[in-house]
Amino acid sequence: MADPNSIYPGDRIAIREVGLRDGLQLTKSWPSTGQKTEWIDRGYAAGVRYFEIGSFLPADKMPRFADVRDVISAVDRHEGAHGIALALNQRGATDALATPVGEITVVVSASEAHNRANVRRSQEESLSEIANVVKLRDAAGKTTIINAGIAMAFGCSLSGEVPEDDVMRMVDRCFEAGVDMVGLADTVGYAGPRQIASLCRRMEQRVTGLPYVIHLHDTRGMGIANASAALDSGCRVFDASLAGLGGCPFAPGATGNVVLEDLIFLAETKGFDTGIDVEQIIAIRSILQDAMPEEELYGALAKAGPPKTLNWRAATA
Amino acid sequence: MADPNSIYPGDRIAIREVGLRDGLQLTKSWPSTGQKTEWIDRGYAAGVRYFEIGSFLPADKMPRFADVRDVISAVDRHEGAHGIALALNQRGATDALATPVGEITVVVSASEAHNRANVRRSQEESLSEIANVVKLRDAAGKTTIINAGIAMAFGCSLSGEVPEDDVMRMVDRCFEAGVDMVGLADTVGYAGPRQIASLCRRMEQRVTGLPYVIHLHDTRGMGIANASAALDSGCRVFDASLAGLGGCPFAPGATGNVVLEDLIFLAETKGFDTGIDVEQIIAIRSILQDAMPEEELYGALAKAGPPKTLNWRAATA
Repeated sequence: MADPNSIYPGDRIAIREVGLRDGLQLTKSWPSTGQKTEWIDRGYAAGVRYFEIGSFLPADKMPRFADVRDVISAVDRHEGAHGIALALNQRGATDALATPVGEITVVVSASEAHNRANVRRSQEESLSEIANVVKLRDAAGKTTIINAGIAMAFGCSLSGEVPEDDVMRMVDRCFEAGVDMVGLADTVGYAGPRQIASLCRRMEQRVTGLPYVIHLHDTRGMGIANASAALDSGCRVFDASLAGLGGCPFAPGATGNVVLEDLIFLAETKGFDTGIDVEQIIAIRSILQDAMPEEELYGALAKAGPPKTLNWRAATA
Repeated sequence: MADPNSIYPGDRIAIREVGLRDGLQLTKSWPSTGQKTEWIDRGYAAGVRYFEIGSFLPADKMPRFADVRDVISAVDRHEGAHGIALALNQRGATDALATPVGEITVVVSASEAHNRANVRRSQEESLSEIANVVKLRDAAGKTTIINAGIAMAFGCSLSGEVPEDDVMRMVDRCFEAGVDMVGLADTVGYAGPRQIASLCRRMEQRVTGLPYVIHLHDTRGMGIANASAALDSGCRVFDASLAGLGGCPFAPGATGNVVLEDLIFLAETKGFDTGIDVEQIIAIRSILQDAMPEEELYGALAKAGPPKTLNWRAATA
């Protein structure tokens, strides 16, 4: 029933602002609901159309996402804006399906060791739970996209190398469980562009026309280079966060998600029209400075600004 | 007489540590001669073989490079280490040729406006001076490489876009002036990977087997992505600096040269054997912390370290 192609048309790049969810997962403090709403409103005004905004978990476990329904409403007010929320089990999915959120992210790891460490379930148990989430969606008669994020798809900080065949097998298993799309996550920033290109080429063959997500962390400085390789290999849906928010529990002090501002700059220099005004995006960083003054804000473009003297948006390839 | 191919063999990547020159160009303070020597000794022990170490300018103008002869000696003590120094005129070149330095970098800008702003000469005057430097080298009967760095080759902060044909014309002019190699510099971090790939492909055709340098700044976050594109397009000689030292006078507060540590990681994940132990390189950052505690040190890999659980050095392509 869900139609990912209507949300993510294959002829253009989709950049998803995940700062409000993945970016806030580990911060010491977090923005108020009003600040989150301003972040979304100004992001939308700048041209962002995809927002991952929170997680459906018991509020006492994750108070930073206790306002997830309000934040979904903040996205829903904007025409053409697409909200995404995480749900780790049927209970969370039931809650999410009671809202107008456009997409539910479910998670499974490419490595058994990380799956157990992350959600205290086996991969098989996670896949069963994902199938149940899909059934809940179908029973509710909704068109909410179910998107399976495959963590540690480029290597695992617990078990090391993850063979490409294992990743592609997990992709198959997720589709068998009924999901509408999958995403490959470089959860700990282990990938280099060669590996990214190789897996993207396999994804292109596997999904044949369906969108898939590349979710990159800049933990080891490869975020933008990996995004460039993924773009070259055909991927058109990317996660990124304002100021590179989002640390890594497996690498304390390390940098977070690939930086939204720098990813926009990359894409435009490569001839992809993001539809996003990067200077307006840079200005939104002040919300983070106010809300979380202790957080380090990443990103080179925000310091230097885009070139003033030249049209840095390349002609479409 | 000089033979760049003997210094930069085409079958492997050469990463040049330019932190001791470009990296120190604008810092508030700088390391002592002893600290510079330790930086070189430990860099060499880690596997670095190319060091750009200073500039031959009147010591009262640039006291940070007053010890350039001592630092050249520090490089020269190590077997197979190649030292590089900047000389902006015949006087500097004469001084450089009196030392054992292996390579002299001369500079000309791809844009007339920047050439005048940078060295108060026209491009034609700079080209004449370069030809004179080559004559001095030949008259001295030395094999010192003369390498012309072409600044603003990917766009100019004063005059905007720089057409590729202008860059390639300047490459021709430098070779006509007698230089042994050229380098293309993204002085202000304007380039994206598409532009890098395009100019590298033209360089590959132009130099047919001779090495050429890509000199990247990470001013707008594209440094590693641009290096990846240059590697894919055939370039094998790269400049980088420890901790990304080296700001940009045209973008105050902006990030500097592409980060040495991250570039090593990139190259190794792509199957290029750098011969450099990146963990030893990361440890050298402490010299910078001691010598210049006010300087911001960049680089994601230094924060997270290379992956411990997997062999991140890809098999050679």
